[in-house]
Amino acid sequence: MFTERVQSRAAKREATRLRVLASAERLFREQGFGSSTIRQIATDAEVSTGTVMSVGDKDALLIAIFDTWIAAVHHGREAEHERGDRTPLSPDSAARKILDLVEPFISYFALDIELSREYAAVIVRGTHESEVFQALARALLTELETLLARTPLSATAAGGGARTLYFAYLGILMTVGNGALDQRGAIAQFQEVIHFVVDHEGTQR
Amino acid sequence: MFTERVQSRAAKREATRLRVLASAERLFREQGFGSSTIRQIATDAEVSTGTVMSVGDKDALLIAIFDTWIAAVHHGREAEHERGDRTPLSPDSAARKILDLVEPFISYFALDIELSREYAAVIVRGTHESEVFQALARALLTELETLLARTPLSATAAGGGARTLYFAYLGILMTVGNGALDQRGAIAQFQEVIHFVVDHEGTQR
Repeated sequence: MFTERVQSRAAKREATRLRVLASAERLFREQGFGSSTIRQIATDAEVSTGTVMSVGDKDALLIAIFDTWIAAVHHGREAEHERGDRTPLSPDSAARKILDLVEPFISYFALDIELSREYAAVIVRGTHESEVFQALARALLTELETLLARTPLSATAAGGGARTLYFAYLGILMTVGNGALDQRGAIAQFQEVIHFVVDHEGTQR
Repeated sequence: MFTERVQSRAAKREATRLRVLASAERLFREQGFGSSTIRQIATDAEVSTGTVMSVGDKDALLIAIFDTWIAAVHHGREAEHERGDRTPLSPDSAARKILDLVEPFISYFALDIELSREYAAVIVRGTHESEVFQALARALLTELETLLARTPLSATAAGGGARTLYFAYLGILMTVGNGALDQRGAIAQFQEVIHFVVDHEGTQR
């Protein structure tokens, strides 16, 4: 009984959290991050401003929206990852699979560039914790390393290559935020980086 | 006469600009970016608040401080760059020289991490132009590519390698801003990326 009630309380809290995040996301995207207020989010989610603030301030809500979405993508790929396909990959197939891993995040980032910039600014400023540099970074790194291990790269190089890809991906997103690269430019640039990393045969003169 | 007077007016304006930037930097570093006001900067630089605002708002001043410093580093290296040393480099020497190119920027960024985070947040948000994604990016890319051209990498790979290093460097700085890497960790991580890029012999199994 006691356990059930605790679970149901936790489930109720989680449902409220998700409703607050959904309202915040809708308002941020419809009327802009700067123009949205905690009061509007509370009204939209049919909760008190105190309940919204218990989920987080505007910056924290923005991080939770992005982090939750990114986590869902990784979670959805876990089944595939756990099937543990170890078939060797040609550099070209590996490059295509790596782009497939990262492309959803670039597209999501480009979907509402104004909001993505605010998100990037908050996580760079470091005032709010984001799973994007912790568990979500590890999830992406594991996915990248598992793919690189199926190419002719050595095990050490697969680790270094995965981290090179990961940091270059962050740098490219940062450049998209600033506006110096658009979505198409970002994908083309990431393709060049991927080919440089996986296609070692072609890089020696 | 006319030309001289124009030059002297431009020189005077530049001197004022530099005095405003120096005051802004001192106040930002001493009392924090958030706590510093345009009025305090004006008082410190002995100019009107209108003169400070003609140089820029607080975000623009912060970008100008960082961009001016970065530009000065590149400018100081131009002479060396133009000597045009084309001696072939071993992967290890190339790796050392690449770290030497980037290390000053990582150290500057780590010098006052709070202020660097504010800078990164402003440039990521894209509301203010920064030379860091334009002329300064090109300067660093040229320096990196010139070094990689002296390694056994092919000419195409030297270009791809330089861009891979550049974007990974941005991604690493972004991670330092968030606090997930410290200065030492950033340098160690960048070293791994550099070795992955220059040392292709060792990466094939």
